[in-house]
Parts: sequence; structure tokens; C-alpha cells
Amino acid sequence: MHIAVLTFDGFNELDSFIAASILNRQRPKGWKAFITSPTKTVTSMNGVTVEAERGLEFAAQADAVIIGSGTKTRDIARDDAVLSQLRRMDPARQLIGAQCSGTLLLSRTGLLGDRPACTDLTTKPWVIEAGVCVLDQPFFADGNIATAGGCLASQYLAAWVLLRGGGEEDARAALHYVAPVGQKEEYVERALGSVQPYLPSPAVGAKRAA
Amino acid sequence: MHIAVLTFDGFNELDSFIAASILNRQRPKGWKAFITSPTKTVTSMNGVTVEAERGLEFAAQADAVIIGSGTKTRDIARDDAVLSQLRRMDPARQLIGAQCSGTLLLSRTGLLGDRPACTDLTTKPWVIEAGVCVLDQPFFADGNIATAGGCLASQYLAAWVLLRGGGEEDARAALHYVAPVGQKEEYVERALGSVQPYLPSPAVGAKRAA
Repeated sequence: MHIAVLTFDGFNELDSFIAASILNRQRPKGWKAFITSPTKTVTSMNGVTVEAERGLEFAAQADAVIIGSGTKTRDIARDDAVLSQLRRMDPARQLIGAQCSGTLLLSRTGLLGDRPACTDLTTKPWVIEAGVCVLDQPFFADGNIATAGGCLASQYLAAWVLLRGGGEEDARAALHYVAPVGQKEEYVERALGSVQPYLPSPAVGAKRAA
Repeated sequence: MHIAVLTFDGFNELDSFIAASILNRQRPKGWKAFITSPTKTVTSMNGVTVEAERGLEFAAQADAVIIGSGTKTRDIARDDAVLSQLRRMDPARQLIGAQCSGTLLLSRTGLLGDRPACTDLTTKPWVIEAGVCVLDQPFFADGNIATAGGCLASQYLAAWVLLRGGGEEDARAALHYVAPVGQKEEYVERALGSVQPYLPSPAVGAKRAA
């Protein structure tokens, strides 16, 4: 599994790096999450400059995509060059997840369809304005499209990709590793409990997305 | 409050960015957490290159320091140039926290003293070898020195700095913002519950570290 973690100027560090770092626990199994950006470097909402590992064209090539969040998403959601790249994503062959304001961007691609979605409290009015029913919960998925709300819910997007692209053992191992010492079971169970109700039925789940 | 988030080559993205990002929620109040490194750029354990915002000399100047973690900490803990910078830190005027393998580095500075400490499961044998009693819990603090174990326990280091340098209202606001939608109270209470037993008594707490 190669995963594009879409990271734009003004990005929220939690949203991009929690997902990427948890998914990269699977690197010994050949997985790799890549910071994926339209420019060679991007600077976070708090002024941290990061080098992109992949360009935006990778969004249509990866096995899974996580659309990160940031303070400039409303502008990016009006950028035709970005949107035309993102509209080449295909949930028939890719897992696509969006985090916080990433949900706004996902809704603009048209790929969200009439699904309800999760987002953060700041972005919520804009996502509602875009015609989406916003859920008061951290995570929701329907088929190969998932959304999460609240920075630390990026754990759950990562868990969803691990469950869908790998299996429960992979998800448990990665979540257990990153969880606080002494609270590991609690963290693993809460993450799985937030995500598992939205997995496809076993017969459908057996068809891997990628 | 200016906070140095010590970030070395091979760093764990979760450990540096969760703490920095939560602390930067206080930027409207004049706080700023800075990615602080011995070189102009550092590359994470997963290959992400980040530009440093401050050099290592900032570790002795900041109001608070968080020593991040990474895959090269055992080598860094033998680097006299790094250690001599870190030995200029002073818990009499700074809050000093260490995350996961950062605890090993903290123990080498001599500043940990005979305190027990938290670290991750991988680093644990090396910290024990360094003569430290390792606790099976996510967070511990004694006076102005704190340690945390397990990547996501970096929330608790951030909460500790917010509680000590700001107050409970600041800590609650930052933790509430970053927590998953629908689970915010649970996250805030667990973080405060993990940290508050290790705050100084109110009379001592009134003396701000910085």
C-alpha cells in the first residue's frame, strides 16, 4: 500500500503527521505514506516548512489517499488546478479519507456524493453550506470513502486504512505501538470501536480496494 | 511562553508535532513552540525533511523544552556537542519534558536526577541500563521535570506545559480543540487525569517556572 497524505500550505501538523506516522508503522510490510503536496515545500499553519515527498499527481496513483486539513482549505477548494488533480481520484480502486477541512475539499471533488460526513467544529458551517449532512461523531465511512473530525481522529482514518488495506492484526499492532504506555488497550479498543462499525460486510471487505 | 521542541535526525513525527501543535493553540496568547534542531534541516524516521525553526542553543533560552524522540537517540546521547548544549538547560527557570527516547537523552544530561521516569517500550531497556527506574504509566512529573511514554502521550507533555505555564482553562481549551468530535470530554478528562496528580501543590504552583 502506497498512501498519499495530501498536505497543503497552512496545513495542520496533527492531521497530516498522525495519519502518516501511524501508517508508516507498516513500512516493514512494504507500506509507505508520503507527504503529498502541490509544491516542493509546504509551510504549516504554525510556520513549520516541510519538503513534499510526492507531487499532487500522486493522489490519483496511490492505493489510498488521506486529505489533510489546514487553515487555507477554503481557498484551495476554489483552486481549479488542485481540484482537477483531485477529481482524478477513483474510489473504485482507491481508499479515500478526509480529515477535518479535508472534508470540504472532498465534497468539492464530487466524490463524497450524498454521504453524511465528519469534520471539525470550525469547518462544519462551510461543509453544511456545501450541502453535506455533518455528523456529531469522530469517524464515518461508507464503502471506500471515509471522513474524520477533530485533529486526533486522524488516528481513526489511519486505523481504517490499516483495517481495509491490511487487517485487524496490523491495525492493532500500529495503534498499540503509538498509544500511551499504561493506556494502550484503551486506545486500541476506542479506535477500533470508532471505525469497525463502518467497515464493509466481510464478503465485500474481502475485495481489497487496491 | 517560548517552547523548544527538540527534534533530531531520525525523529518520530508524532512526538515532535503533537506537542508542538497543541502548544501552538496558545499562539493568540503569545506562546510559540519552535522545532529546535542542531542542523538547518532534519529528516524524520519515515523520511520527511523539516526545516528547523531554532538552533540547539535555544534549548537553554526557552521557557520550556520538550525533548522529542527518534530512532537515532542512542547515538545522539553519545554526542558531546549535543550534550553540552543540553546541559545548559536549567530546571530552576525552565520546564523540561522528555518524550519516549527523549528520556534517555534527559538522563544523560544529569538533570533527571533520581526521579523515576516514563519512556516507550523500545527505549525502556536502555533507560533502565542508564540507571533510571521506569514507570508503567504514560506520564510522570516531579517539580519542573516531566517524562512521557508512548507517542500519543505527547498530548500529556503538552497539557503539562499548558497547566504549568498557563492554567487549567488554557489546557482544557487546547485539548478540547484537538480531540475527536464526539469524544472531546473523554479526551480532555483523560489528559488532565494523567497529568494533574503530578502538578506541584498550589502554593508551589503559584511560582511560575519562567
